[in-house]
Formats: sequence, structure tokens, C-alpha cells
Amino acid sequence: MNTETICALATAPGGALGVIRISGPKAFDAVSAICSVKCRECQANTVHFGRIIHAEEIIDEVMVSVFRAPHSYTGEDSVEISCHGSHYILNKVLELLIHNGCRMAMPGEYTQRAFLNGKMDLSQAEAVADLIASTNHATHQMAISQLRGHFSSELSDLREQLLKLTSLLELELDFSDHEDLEFADRSTLLALSHAIEKKISSLAHSFETGNALKQGIPVAIVGKTNVGKSTLLNRFLHEEKAIVSSIHGTTRDVIEDNIQIHGVTFRFIDTAGLRSTDNEIEQIGIERAYQKMHEAAIILWVADTLPNEQEIKDFKQSVESKTLILVKNKIDLEEPSSSTDMEYLPDGTPYLQVSAKYNINIDRLEETIYQAANIPAITQNDVIITSARHYEALLQAHESIQRVIDGMNNQLTGDLLAEDLRLCIEQLSDITGGTITTEETLQNIFRNFCVGK
Amino acid sequence: MNTETICALATAPGGALGVIRISGPKAFDAVSAICSVKCRECQANTVHFGRIIHAEEIIDEVMVSVFRAPHSYTGEDSVEISCHGSHYILNKVLELLIHNGCRMAMPGEYTQRAFLNGKMDLSQAEAVADLIASTNHATHQMAISQLRGHFSSELSDLREQLLKLTSLLELELDFSDHEDLEFADRSTLLALSHAIEKKISSLAHSFETGNALKQGIPVAIVGKTNVGKSTLLNRFLHEEKAIVSSIHGTTRDVIEDNIQIHGVTFRFIDTAGLRSTDNEIEQIGIERAYQKMHEAAIILWVADTLPNEQEIKDFKQSVESKTLILVKNKIDLEEPSSSTDMEYLPDGTPYLQVSAKYNINIDRLEETIYQAANIPAITQNDVIITSARHYEALLQAHESIQRVIDGMNNQLTGDLLAEDLRLCIEQLSDITGGTITTEETLQNIFRNFCVGK
Repeated sequence: MNTETICALATAPGGALGVIRISGPKAFDAVSAICSVKCRECQANTVHFGRIIHAEEIIDEVMVSVFRAPHSYTGEDSVEISCHGSHYILNKVLELLIHNGCRMAMPGEYTQRAFLNGKMDLSQAEAVADLIASTNHATHQMAISQLRGHFSSELSDLREQLLKLTSLLELELDFSDHEDLEFADRSTLLALSHAIEKKISSLAHSFETGNALKQGIPVAIVGKTNVGKSTLLNRFLHEEKAIVSSIHGTTRDVIEDNIQIHGVTFRFIDTAGLRSTDNEIEQIGIERAYQKMHEAAIILWVADTLPNEQEIKDFKQSVESKTLILVKNKIDLEEPSSSTDMEYLPDGTPYLQVSAKYNINIDRLEETIYQAANIPAITQNDVIITSARHYEALLQAHESIQRVIDGMNNQLTGDLLAEDLRLCIEQLSDITGGTITTEETLQNIFRNFCVGK
Repeated sequence: MNTETICALATAPGGALGVIRISGPKAFDAVSAICSVKCRECQANTVHFGRIIHAEEIIDEVMVSVFRAPHSYTGEDSVEISCHGSHYILNKVLELLIHNGCRMAMPGEYTQRAFLNGKMDLSQAEAVADLIASTNHATHQMAISQLRGHFSSELSDLREQLLKLTSLLELELDFSDHEDLEFADRSTLLALSHAIEKKISSLAHSFETGNALKQGIPVAIVGKTNVGKSTLLNRFLHEEKAIVSSIHGTTRDVIEDNIQIHGVTFRFIDTAGLRSTDNEIEQIGIERAYQKMHEAAIILWVADTLPNEQEIKDFKQSVESKTLILVKNKIDLEEPSSSTDMEYLPDGTPYLQVSAKYNINIDRLEETIYQAANIPAITQNDVIITSARHYEALLQAHESIQRVIDGMNNQLTGDLLAEDLRLCIEQLSDITGGTITTEETLQNIFRNFCVGK
């Protein structure tokens, strides 16, 4: 149990209200020292009107909520003071709390204490930060799922299976001198190992989706100069982010911004038009355009005239296996009867006709992009990995279980397999912080939290 | 009583927590419709853990505080939901509340309801906005004093005295046919009127201090070009706000910013250097410098060599009755033994030697400025007017009581004085909203509030 009592502003500065959180063994005494509410006498989970008083001056009229250990967020005695949202007042109240034995909380320290006091495991604690940062349906669903412990429970299932495997092998080990006895059929053990390996692999695999959804799916807008790439970006963003002109080579920097399509974040990247140029700055821009193409999951190839067969062949080669969407822009310059359905070139390459300038068929293009991303419908019951830390642990655990499988196939004895099994269990436990978690890991996790949570 | 139920985010967006307030007859039902906490069954002033649920999806895990009419801020049934501070979540919760019969609150609508439900008078309601906006000790003290009703109680005292005066005059009126009877000695009535007039005048007078403290006391930094005015401003602000160069006429715009000295806001105004110039933009700047000098309460006259008698005479004439502080800058260029005490020119004009560049004697200058502002020590028991609306009402009431006094001096009869007395009472009542307050007045007052308060 922590002996220090921490305080922090839990809300953003500048609103009508500001909420100050206090947690730790001296929470009640520190608050009662500066406030007319006597927390020790308050029932748990009650709210009280009070005055913050210092040197006979009233600092603020506030509402004080009292939570008693272990039934609080942190698991400690906790108080929340809801003040008027003046910087002056909030700073004054924090100052008084510090003067009365509290110290300022570190980023994420409330949640860290919740973890250390067994209120949640480490992956759930990490989900709190993800939940606060969630900006759309997809990231929200993934964070809620993790916060509710779906990932933790998958890990706990895996752990049970690994322990079962271990004990079966140990049983074999104990009676290894009875050469005629084989307590567990090796093929059963192998099947169990394979099941575990498959589960770990599938969890690790989900990181691709989880990470893309969390960071935004990168969509590069590429094509020759002056085909309307920046106009298209501005159209997606509903703002004049990129400078548009009829001069070839207007865009030289790489311009990025996010839009939401059906609750999923797409990161659009406008790039310099591809052409031969002597302009050095433009050349650098073009190099970056190629680089961004490699980083993108989806490539919007914008053209104002349809490319010929050779051009398509060359382009496809340069984008490798990326999902490619060919966009014929400036449909407004064509006859009004131009189709807004998906059309096909003679070689079967599909393309969509739009007008970025006049907002024609852009909805259809967004829908096409969304479909191309091939995002699984995500519910709160799905377990999708979004943290690089979890991904790494899963990869390591996967290596360990793979070594167990290889060992079994090579007829290694149980005692030689036990070490890798133990490793695998530990690596999975690191995710939830079940075994001893190092101070460094905790620091890495919680330093990215906001203060006050 | 309002029939509409309102909801709004009461905290600034972007923190660890976001608090949503719901108030009105349907507050409990609307919250219970979207949340696992059944508010109707909750005791008043209790906090409950719950989940916001929509279409079988969990939106957030929250803390729900329940307040019952009339014991809430607004005087209505009210709920506060403390959510994770994600925009996505907060918007979703507000959306669900609106879907369940709430509407978004207007700026200040919670406080307006508190006023309409008799939880506070109008001047107290206005103090809430002042309290939230308070940035220093002085503005905070004034807002707290007003919120606690010190001003209201002064007004209520005045009202009682005015009613007493009225009834004494009415008594006189009732028996006016008995010419020999004089129930209240006219000189007593006159003395009472004078006391009332004096009180109103003193309240109105306090607006000068209150307004200066609320808006910041304007200090103009003036002087010739290149004497270090911008360097001095930057020194006060601890940042490179104004561009500094050795080129004469660098500053042309008027640059303003606030600093706090002993908990009082001073608004420093850097101006273009005064000199003859052909540069049109600089000329405009110099005109503005003169204008700002007239608006300032204190003028810092910066010079790098001491002005002669004629210059001082001319300058003093141009600044009229303003408080003038002569600052000899660039003390670093003098011998190191230069005095940092207040010095005096032969004609008795005091001056202070500083180096803006090397931060020499700036503390002393700030102290001198603070002293020059001559600010009364303000406690929470002082009544100081900070609102232009209150000031106007007091001026009108002062005119009314002055007419009563003039009437008495001219031997007018009680019935002729009664009308002005009634007016005076009404004008004072308008401040606290005691009589009927028009919709327009309410709108004017509350539209400057933040939403959520």
C-alpha cells in the first residue's frame, strides 16, 4: 500500500467545473484540513457541499465526493473536489492540499495505484488510456473490450492450458524411470501445444488490424502533377488544408490529416505530383511521395485522363501488393452523362470517376476506400491487440511455444520442454502484470497517461 | 418551474475526466434510460458506479452523482455523470441524453435556473461567472464576496431604509389635512435620505476600483524610440512578446499583455517610440501611443538620458493628471555604482534607474508601479462593484435619491417625493432581480457564461 497521498486536476483546465482528485492514506485528513467537509465522518460514496477555506478566506464553494478504501478507483481512500473552473482557484486548492501533506500525482498514477492495489490488471490499466484517447467507434470498442477484461480472460485461458501442459509433462518427468509408462499421449500433448500456438498467433495477428485502427489506416494520394490530388484531400477533410493552384508542382510537402469513414480513422496523405523536375525542393517532395506510397495500406491513384496499359503495368509494379484505387478526377469537364458507377479498363482494372472540385461521387469514393480497407466489424466481445508492448510479448510467447512444439517433434524429454513452457507463461503474464512487473515497465506504460487519471 | 431537462458538458474537453450535468424534471429518467444506475431509487447526494449502455454496447464506465430537488445547484432534480474524457464518449453520452428527452443547455442556463428557483439572487448568479473567470487574488476576493451575498445584503439594507423613508412620508401624507401635525421631522427624513445617498454613491464609486481590478490596471510604456520600451515589456512578461532591435521605430503596433503584481493584474501597453517620422505606419503607431497614454492609469516614461526641465514640463502637461513614473533605462551602460533607490531630479521629479536588458532593479520598478496604483487591500467582506450593469443601476438610483433630497430641500410634499423613492427602490432591486426581471436582461447576463454552468 502506498504511504503517499497524491492530488491532481483530473479535468482539462478552462471549463465551468474543475475536478481535483485526492487519493491515499491522508486523503481525508488533507481535505478536511482545508475544507468544511469532515471526510472521516462522511459515509462512503456520498457528496457534500463545502467551502475551501484558507486563513479565514473562502477560496471556493465546492462539492466533495468521498470514497472509502477499497471501494474506490485506486482502492485507497479517495476524495474528489468539484470546484469552479478558475485557474486561480484550482491552483490555490492544489497548493493547499500539498501544504497539507499531499504531493502532485505523476501521469497515470491513479490508474497505476488501481493496478498495484489489484483493482485491475495491467492490460486493463492500459485500456484506460486508450479509452480516454479513443476518437471513433472502432478505437472505442477495442478499448472497452480490453478494459472489461476480454483480453485478460483470453490470456488467463491460455495460462491454464499452459499450466495443464506443464503438469502433464511433469507427471511424465516424475515417472520417467518407468520407461513403459507414458501418462500423457505425446500426440495429445502436441495437439494441446498446437492449439495454444494457434491462439497466440491469432492474437498477435490481430495487432495488424488493431494498430491500423488505432493509428488510422494510411491512404496515400498519388499521381502526376495538377490532376487534383490536393483538391481531393481538401474535399475529404472539408477544409482548405492543402494549397491548391493550377501551377504544376504546387504541393511539395507531404500533407496528412485524418478523416472518419463509418467510425474508422483513415489517415490521408497528400503527396507531391510525380514528374521529372529540376526543382530541388520538388524532387525531395517526390522522393517522399514514393516513400509514403510504401508506408500506405491503400493507394489512391489520381489521374485526369485514363492511363494506358503500360502505365498501369508500371504503376502496379511500383506499388507492389498495396490495395490500389484508380480515381479519374475532373469528371465535371466531361459530358454530364459520365457514369458514377465503378467502371473497368480493358485489362480489368476498376476505376471510379469523380470531381473533387464539384464534390461529385466523393461519397462513393469514400465508400470504396472503406471497403478496400476490409475492416472486420468490431464488437466489444472481440479481442484485438492495439499495444506494441502486448504484440511484442505475444511474439515472444509464440516463439517459446513454437520451441516446445519443435522439441516435442524432436522427441525431447519433458524436462527440456519445461523451461520454454515456463518462459511462455511468463511472457504472457507480463501483459497483465500477473508476475512481478518491473518499475521500468510501469514507468513506460504510465508516463503516456494524462495527469489526473 | 422549468419543464425542459437540460444537459451539457460542464468541464473543458480534453482531460482525464469529463463531467456531464443533467438538470430538470426528467433528469433521473433520462439518465436511467441510458445507464445502469437507477436514479429514482438513489438517495440524494450519493455517488454510484455505473455503465452507460446503448444497443447492448457499453459506451463507458462512469460515476453518477444524484441530487434531488430542491437540494441541488439548480434547485431541480440533477445528475452529474463523470465519464472518461474522450470526445467520442462525451459526445455519445450527450447524444443519448438528447435522444432520451434532454436538450443541450444554453450558456449559463444552470445558474439561470438556480436564480429562477430562488437558490441565489441575480447579483450572486453574476458572481458565479466572475468566480470562474477570476485569475488573481483581487478578482477572486471580489467575486467570492459577491457570491456570498455581501453586496445583496448591502442592497437589502438600503431597501429597508428606503421603505422606512417611504412609510414615514406616507404617514405624513395620510394626515396631510391636519396641517398642525408633522409626524416625522423633515430634518430627520433629510438626514435619512442623505445617508442613503451617501451609501449608494460610495457603492457606485467602488466600480472604479472594481473595474480596474477586473480589467487590469492599464500601464502605458511610452518614450522616445530606442530607449528600451519593448525590452522592458518583454522583461515584465518574461517572454519575447515584442520584437526588439536597435533600429529606431521597430515597434509600430500597440502590444498589450497582462502581468500580476501582488495578485493584481496590470495591463502593460508597449507603444511606438515618440519621434517625428515620415513613415506612415509609424505615424499611425505614434498617434495610437498618444491615445493609449490617455486611456492608461499609470504612465511609465522610459528614457535613456534624464530629460531636462522643459521636457519634463511638456511631458507632464501632455499626460494631464495621470500617475507618472519616470524610468531611466540602460543603467548597465553607467558606472556600476549607480543607485537603485528612488532618485530625484532638481525639480523634485522622482525617477528610478533600471536595466531592462540585464534585469537590474526591475523588482523595484514593479513595486513602484504597484504602489502607484494605490489599490486598497481587498477582503472578502468588502463590497466592490465590478459589473457595468450594477454600476448603471446604482447611478440611476443615485439620481433618484438625489431628486428626493432636492425635493425635500424645496419643501415638496411627500406624494411628490414618493415616485422618486419608488424608482430608487426599483433601480436597486433590478440588481438582485428582486422585482420582475425581463427576459432580455437575463439573456444579456447569461449569454456570457460558459455552457455547463
